[in-house]
Amino acid sequence: VAFDQDTFSFGIDLGGTSLRVALFDSGIKLMSSHRLSTRVADGPDAVIADMADCVRSLLHAAPPRHHLLGIGIGSPGPLNFELGTLGTLPNFPGWDGFPLRDSLQQATGLPVYLENDANAAAAAEWKMGAGKTAMVDNLAVITIGTGLGSGLILDGRIWHGMVGMGGELGHASIDRNGPACGCGSRGCLETYASAQGLLRLARAEAQLPHASQPFRELMQLRPSCTPRDIAHLAEAGDASARRSFEQLGEYLGFGLASLISTLDLPLIVVGGGVATAWDLFAPAMFTAIHCHSLVYRLGAPTQRHTMEHNRTFIRPAELGPSAGLLGAALLPALLGPTGRNGSATGTDVQ
Amino acid sequence: VAFDQDTFSFGIDLGGTSLRVALFDSGIKLMSSHRLSTRVADGPDAVIADMADCVRSLLHAAPPRHHLLGIGIGSPGPLNFELGTLGTLPNFPGWDGFPLRDSLQQATGLPVYLENDANAAAAAEWKMGAGKTAMVDNLAVITIGTGLGSGLILDGRIWHGMVGMGGELGHASIDRNGPACGCGSRGCLETYASAQGLLRLARAEAQLPHASQPFRELMQLRPSCTPRDIAHLAEAGDASARRSFEQLGEYLGFGLASLISTLDLPLIVVGGGVATAWDLFAPAMFTAIHCHSLVYRLGAPTQRHTMEHNRTFIRPAELGPSAGLLGAALLPALLGPTGRNGSATGTDVQ
Repeated sequence: VAFDQDTFSFGIDLGGTSLRVALFDSGIKLMSSHRLSTRVADGPDAVIADMADCVRSLLHAAPPRHHLLGIGIGSPGPLNFELGTLGTLPNFPGWDGFPLRDSLQQATGLPVYLENDANAAAAAEWKMGAGKTAMVDNLAVITIGTGLGSGLILDGRIWHGMVGMGGELGHASIDRNGPACGCGSRGCLETYASAQGLLRLARAEAQLPHASQPFRELMQLRPSCTPRDIAHLAEAGDASARRSFEQLGEYLGFGLASLISTLDLPLIVVGGGVATAWDLFAPAMFTAIHCHSLVYRLGAPTQRHTMEHNRTFIRPAELGPSAGLLGAALLPALLGPTGRNGSATGTDVQ
Repeated sequence: VAFDQDTFSFGIDLGGTSLRVALFDSGIKLMSSHRLSTRVADGPDAVIADMADCVRSLLHAAPPRHHLLGIGIGSPGPLNFELGTLGTLPNFPGWDGFPLRDSLQQATGLPVYLENDANAAAAAEWKMGAGKTAMVDNLAVITIGTGLGSGLILDGRIWHGMVGMGGELGHASIDRNGPACGCGSRGCLETYASAQGLLRLARAEAQLPHASQPFRELMQLRPSCTPRDIAHLAEAGDASARRSFEQLGEYLGFGLASLISTLDLPLIVVGGGVATAWDLFAPAMFTAIHCHSLVYRLGAPTQRHTMEHNRTFIRPAELGPSAGLLGAALLPALLGPTGRNGSATGTDVQ
């Protein structure tokens, strides 16, 4: 994607709790931004009005005489990309089928590009993060937060799949007798490799007879304890806390092994809040991948007739929690006419 | 792909046991073919000589004044597509790294296009089988024979992955405590959904106290029994034989659920010898997919805001055991300069 010196894009990150609207320059450098609560209960029209207000206010503060490529918006899925509408979103009751793209376009007069949030984060890591570093156009980006989100970039294009959920690795089951998942299945990767998964693994670990006193106290007496609390104990050497992260790494590695066997990607990026504890879970993750993926092992440097560097790289994300917002801001350039065929588009602002 | 009226292609199916070489017309209609044993032990040069002999002999019988697009060859993987060489193939000891593409090109003077056999079969189902019927350019083709092979077509291109094994679903593990697999992992999909997997499931079924006398006798007294024997009993109503296929269907469905969750494909084609017993395993397979894939269920017609036909179709293969050979013959048109940019290529034969 080529950016003109004086082009600008809006990125919008629509979350169930907060809404971020930001103006970026051609290098996807943040110019200015707004963050507010998402008024989910007030309905989609109220939130569209909030978005349009933010866009107008940021435009006022923008330098004069610039060219706007448009607005990229990252939304929770599932989405209907053809129609630019929302599917049935668990955290947005009553929003089913809302025409997000066209409503925002109408409210702002700017071209709007819709993407699901995990794919937007994947686009950001591809163009500006770990994918840029590795110089690849094929990658999966796994975001381990409260749940597990995933986005795929295949052959330099964001992979949507058929119902706009392409790359829902969090709900690929890795144990059909595993714990029940909110989606109706059992043993989904998300039930292990997520904040809630880690807490579940840690609570089970705290039941074991050899669990340390501080770990037991943390898990049993502090219902509000977080992955960060467990990470602190683990970093201080607590065996049970370390074992909790190792188990997360084992399950995550088992799931990634299947992904590698299925797609043989050159790069998998692991980000999200929980993934900041990389050193605590990555060794177990790599062991599990090596153990469970023939395709991964065949790419190993020790293999005689394969090249040294063609094993799947699994790397921590580089962009942090703003990846979704950055990715949204990339959408007008990636998906707009400029990105597709080089012709100019957008709106000139005087 | 547009075929000229008078263009021809060779398809070669290189198997560990037999070698097939066939000449096809522009509509991929078989003109004539040779089948011989693959002289694996005599080394790759001997087999290349056999291939070249077949090509020359078929050319003699071909109509005069035709245009040859080249030779497509389907080979077991892994392959290095850039170099056109073989990786380390379990059934071809001593062939490691053999430059299959260039050797055959040199021996015949024709352009050679190399693909792995599962991908060649996938290409055939895409262009001439179930993918043509469904009119899609995104599909997975699962071939359930002795093992489980798989090929992916994504956005109208054969998916290779990084080490030329992209789409080795047979070695995606679905149970990390499952039976040991030859690849070094445990619980690979192939250890359940394959001829060997079915026999293993059936042998376990025969141990159960309620197993019927005929089933017990089949499994315990006839070491050479085949999936077809079990299918015959199942079709006659034997509960244990039926249960064996149902279990295969459950495991297969569990694996396909993950594939659907990962890629959200519009079509999955299930072929191969074992898959001819579709009616015996498909109901259990569909139940498992429905149970384990949120993405599949979201595409369901009962969903309010999704369109009626955007659920993944899972269909039996349409082409039978020649899919690999047909797919090989398609390669010159798919991968050659004609397929890529419309310019003519190949060799005119007077």
